[in-house]
Amino acid sequence: MMVLISYDVATGDKDGQRRLRCIAKECQNHAQRVQNSVFEANLDYGTFLKMKSRLLAIMDKEKDSLRFYYLGNNWKHRVEHIGAKPGMDMEGPLIF
Amino acid sequence: MMVLISYDVATGDKDGQRRLRCIAKECQNHAQRVQNSVFEANLDYGTFLKMKSRLLAIMDKEKDSLRFYYLGNNWKHRVEHIGAKPGMDMEGPLIF
Repeated sequence: MMVLISYDVATGDKDGQRRLRCIAKECQNHAQRVQNSVFEANLDYGTFLKMKSRLLAIMDKEKDSLRFYYLGNNWKHRVEHIGAKPGMDMEGPLIF
Repeated sequence: MMVLISYDVATGDKDGQRRLRCIAKECQNHAQRVQNSVFEANLDYGTFLKMKSRLLAIMDKEKDSLRFYYLGNNWKHRVEHIGAKPGMDMEGPLIF
C-alpha cells in the first residue's frame, strides 16, 4: 500500500528539534522523501502500522501534526511532481 | 475534485522568500491549509487548472518543487490527521 506522510513539528525548543530529527529518521528508514516534510511509503500493512506506531510515540500531539494519505493501488496516476527533486541536504537548517 | 498540494520553496535568498509568500497566498486563496506547506483544494477542474497555472508561473522550477496528489472522490476515507491543527501564525518564521 502507498501512503503519503506529511508532518509539521513545532521546533521552537530543543525537544521539538529532537522530535523533528527522530520523525524524519523514522520516515527515512521506511519511506522515500519527496519534499522536506513529505514522504511516500510503499509498505505492507503490518510494516506501515509499526512505523505509524513509532511516529505517534515520538510526536507531541499537542504541538505537532502528522497526516497520512492512503493513496490506494492506482497511486502512480494520482501524483504529479513539478520542479526540483529533493536535494541531499534535507536535514540542514531551512528557514520558512 | 480534491487535490492535495505540497510545496518546497528554496528560501535562501529574498526572491525565494517572495516566491514562498506568493505560493502560500495563492494556495490560501483557493485551498485549505492543513500543514505549513500542505494544502487541500476542493475545486472544479477549471478553477484548479487556473490555480495550478498561477503556481507554476510563480515557482522557480530549478529550485522549488510542487506536488499534486489527485485524491479522487472518496478522498475523505484516504486522509487521517493526528495531533495539532494548523495554527494561525503560518506565515511567521519557522526554523526546520
